[in-house]
Amino acid sequence: MDFTFIKKDARCGARRGEISTPRGKIQTPVFMPVGTQATVKGIFPRDLLDFDAEIILGNTYHLYLRPGMEIMKEAGGLHAFMGWDRPILTDSGGFQVFSLADLRKITGEGVEFQSHIDGSYHFFTPELVVDIQHTLGSDIVMVLDECVPYPADHNYACNSMKLSLKWAELCKRHHSKKDSESGLFGIVQGSVYRDLRKECAYALQDIGFDGYAIGGLSVGEPTSVMYEVTGYTVDYLPENQPRYVMGCGFPDDILMMVECGIDMFDCVIPTRYGRNGTGFTSSGKVPVKNGAYKSDFQPLDPECDCYTCRTFTRAYLRHLFNTGEMLGPALLSLHNIHFYLNLMRHVRSAIDNDNYLVFKHKFLSRYQEGENL
Amino acid sequence: MDFTFIKKDARCGARRGEISTPRGKIQTPVFMPVGTQATVKGIFPRDLLDFDAEIILGNTYHLYLRPGMEIMKEAGGLHAFMGWDRPILTDSGGFQVFSLADLRKITGEGVEFQSHIDGSYHFFTPELVVDIQHTLGSDIVMVLDECVPYPADHNYACNSMKLSLKWAELCKRHHSKKDSESGLFGIVQGSVYRDLRKECAYALQDIGFDGYAIGGLSVGEPTSVMYEVTGYTVDYLPENQPRYVMGCGFPDDILMMVECGIDMFDCVIPTRYGRNGTGFTSSGKVPVKNGAYKSDFQPLDPECDCYTCRTFTRAYLRHLFNTGEMLGPALLSLHNIHFYLNLMRHVRSAIDNDNYLVFKHKFLSRYQEGENL
Repeated sequence: MDFTFIKKDARCGARRGEISTPRGKIQTPVFMPVGTQATVKGIFPRDLLDFDAEIILGNTYHLYLRPGMEIMKEAGGLHAFMGWDRPILTDSGGFQVFSLADLRKITGEGVEFQSHIDGSYHFFTPELVVDIQHTLGSDIVMVLDECVPYPADHNYACNSMKLSLKWAELCKRHHSKKDSESGLFGIVQGSVYRDLRKECAYALQDIGFDGYAIGGLSVGEPTSVMYEVTGYTVDYLPENQPRYVMGCGFPDDILMMVECGIDMFDCVIPTRYGRNGTGFTSSGKVPVKNGAYKSDFQPLDPECDCYTCRTFTRAYLRHLFNTGEMLGPALLSLHNIHFYLNLMRHVRSAIDNDNYLVFKHKFLSRYQEGENL
Repeated sequence: MDFTFIKKDARCGARRGEISTPRGKIQTPVFMPVGTQATVKGIFPRDLLDFDAEIILGNTYHLYLRPGMEIMKEAGGLHAFMGWDRPILTDSGGFQVFSLADLRKITGEGVEFQSHIDGSYHFFTPELVVDIQHTLGSDIVMVLDECVPYPADHNYACNSMKLSLKWAELCKRHHSKKDSESGLFGIVQGSVYRDLRKECAYALQDIGFDGYAIGGLSVGEPTSVMYEVTGYTVDYLPENQPRYVMGCGFPDDILMMVECGIDMFDCVIPTRYGRNGTGFTSSGKVPVKNGAYKSDFQPLDPECDCYTCRTFTRAYLRHLFNTGEMLGPALLSLHNIHFYLNLMRHVRSAIDNDNYLVFKHKFLSRYQEGENL
């Protein structure tokens, strides 16, 4: 995989780039819909294609447990299994081991855990998670890391960061042995400590990766801290490689981080909020289940041209949620993914025109005004 | 609405026809996907169009309770509300009052019942259910009837049939006052008693309707009895008007009834089975949740060209159900509706070619052989 740095916005850190993989090109900044269990929840792959999603994310931890690697091998990998032939980035499973699994035990060699589904024991090593991701046929492979909770003291964060660095090196060594065109990304840890983030970022570059993620954010810290850590960590990352903030975020978070120079995002928010009845619109979030919408016959987002907004009203969507009809979550998830992907198109176009700050200001003032109504 | 009788198969009672309504033509025999609560469960209207569904069914009882008639009026009727501009047949609510609602009390004037949702009291009269269906903008309106449970003794069935006849006449009178091009169908009741079915069928024709339904089937009687009642009731119905067996059925039921000369069907089976993990295929039902399919990488139905079968494997569908992903019910419902609509296309083509019996035999022998594996 290759990254071409295209340009920086003339007035801020926002930047345009292009990732090339054998399965297709990805224009950055990019939002990657999350396909945890081999499906972007509630969305047909054909709609992702229709929205021109250029890459999606898969979760190693979930896929390793179900359907399991034997079936994945027989299927010929994740792309064939789920009917998606464009690029897929897979995480390493580390985040889920630390957030979902039971009874974790970390050693220098890896992490032992119990499945949250059936309690069975498993042991993830740096080498194994690379193997799993290669079996999945991942186009961008992530290293195994320990995701540090928030808050964590400096000593804990430092030791953890060093363990993650060691694992990163083992992942790199193992990945290099594979005959594969997949990229491998390192993950900068270090909690909220600037010295640790800096040390980690430079140490990862000494190992050498195809891209660099900032991990350990969106774990409970205040938004301002998330922006601050992102802002200074970017300074320690190379300009000519992609930068990825994992697991973020709301539309406003993404816009703030693009300004810092982040290229890649993933988040479950559009589908999770969609399933629960909240649509993202140009004038803020719309919780369609609310009784206020029962006679509201305008589209969810009057400025949107997705199927949901072209065809149905807020009153209808509210009725679907009110009666427990599965079309409600499906239509809202569809709209929200379209909204995110469309937002990123506008982001890229604004950067192309050196107009990112104006775009961001305009978008956020309408979006946040709607939020505060 | 008009019905054109096109032709009868040369070798059996199966027949081709065409219903014309201001919202479009309907080729018969036809299967009407059921859109109980203003949505065919799990299916986007665009897919129904793509499958060339020519008519769907809406349920008066459910829509009257939620979203309610005020919102329906504001929305401009059911078509606008749900984003479907082709014909809709609505039932009268009678069946649901007798199967879902609590504390029914029947009088000559109508039926009082309590909502199954909130226990609120309501009173359906023949006139009110016609009004409701006109507010919905129904293209084919059904009369209010009492749906007799199975088994019922002759005396009960006779009295109930006479009540339904009285209601049918009141519906006709009220419907005739409307300035509307909607059709109005009578419903033949009479349980499993030939004399009652005959009396009811002729009495309804004396009142005069645009089509005739056979009600009170699929209520627990043996399949052979359902076929028998259908077979002899058809003999008492006019040839130049559409015949509709309500709430049936499985693919084999439909094929048997088409042979008797039935033109219209509706049933929740394709979507209900789809949601629960069973696909209908040319070689029988496939319960994809079954462990037997976990490494089965063929399409759900290798002979089907729907999106589900073109794109995904049984192993993948099994994984979706196994992990509780909503894409599973959506993809299986989509396939099942396509399967039913495609089956009806084959049925019509076979009748056109005077080849219905051969088609039916071929289809059923493969379908039922698969069932018995």
